[in-house]
Amino acid sequence: MAQQYNAQGEIVLPPDYREWIYLSTGLGMNYSETPSAHPNFDNVFVNPEAYRVFLKTGAWPDKTMMIIEARASDDDPLSKGGKFQNKITAWELHVKDASHGGWAFYAIQPTAKSGKAFPKTAACFICHQKNGAVDTTFVQYYPTLIDAAVKAGTFKK
Amino acid sequence: MAQQYNAQGEIVLPPDYREWIYLSTGLGMNYSETPSAHPNFDNVFVNPEAYRVFLKTGAWPDKTMMIIEARASDDDPLSKGGKFQNKITAWELHVKDASHGGWAFYAIQPTAKSGKAFPKTAACFICHQKNGAVDTTFVQYYPTLIDAAVKAGTFKK
Repeated sequence: MAQQYNAQGEIVLPPDYREWIYLSTGLGMNYSETPSAHPNFDNVFVNPEAYRVFLKTGAWPDKTMMIIEARASDDDPLSKGGKFQNKITAWELHVKDASHGGWAFYAIQPTAKSGKAFPKTAACFICHQKNGAVDTTFVQYYPTLIDAAVKAGTFKK
Repeated sequence: MAQQYNAQGEIVLPPDYREWIYLSTGLGMNYSETPSAHPNFDNVFVNPEAYRVFLKTGAWPDKTMMIIEARASDDDPLSKGGKFQNKITAWELHVKDASHGGWAFYAIQPTAKSGKAFPKTAACFICHQKNGAVDTTFVQYYPTLIDAAVKAGTFKK
């Protein structure tokens, strides 16, 4: 499914992304200089078409959409020291679309269904460019993708 | 897809479970009395057929398979205090199969592709029976399922 943009140029949250391919979840992985007392979980999904291409080629095709679903972490009442996921706090999208200038980042608020692009000077661009293992994406954090990229020679160490 | 058991009566790990429906991820949610210094992430997947029935009915059909994929948590070198997922440390399956006596738990070691059932006296049975919100499953930890269960009146508070 190709990306949908609304009349304001915002990207529209794909309604079925929870049925896409799951890549991984981190805790407290953000751009802040200080650890959070209440870190978010970040669940990452990718559209199935792009996932299947990546497994074969180690590269992202045009129209790749990666979606971070950020959720509050709460203390589990049953286990000692455990944390579980609660409400959505934001979505962040990383989208490869040649018709929109290549890779772009978008943020969608938890009460919204679409969101604006980050400016090209945002911290996410700098960090992903410098540290992303494959084509500005953090494949080093996605266990099911690493082998395909290493095999294809696209994995930047 | 129905469950597969091998000649030893062990359940076989479904090879495509990473393309099933993702439910949620916890950190350090286990049966230990003390928090772990190196807690596991637990990614939970369910077979798509059971997921679709649950969204409609708030109940799990026969042949439901829930799979926990446990992974080591490592400190993220890029973010302050962040944790990311590394190697698989175990799989745990919770399987509803009338032909095998109803709900059962199985553990699969990270080097194996099948595993034995837990005895019916294991801690998992007691805890899931007492605390599971729906039919001995922890739907209270799976944000995309809670509404369907509450609406259907199957959610135990």
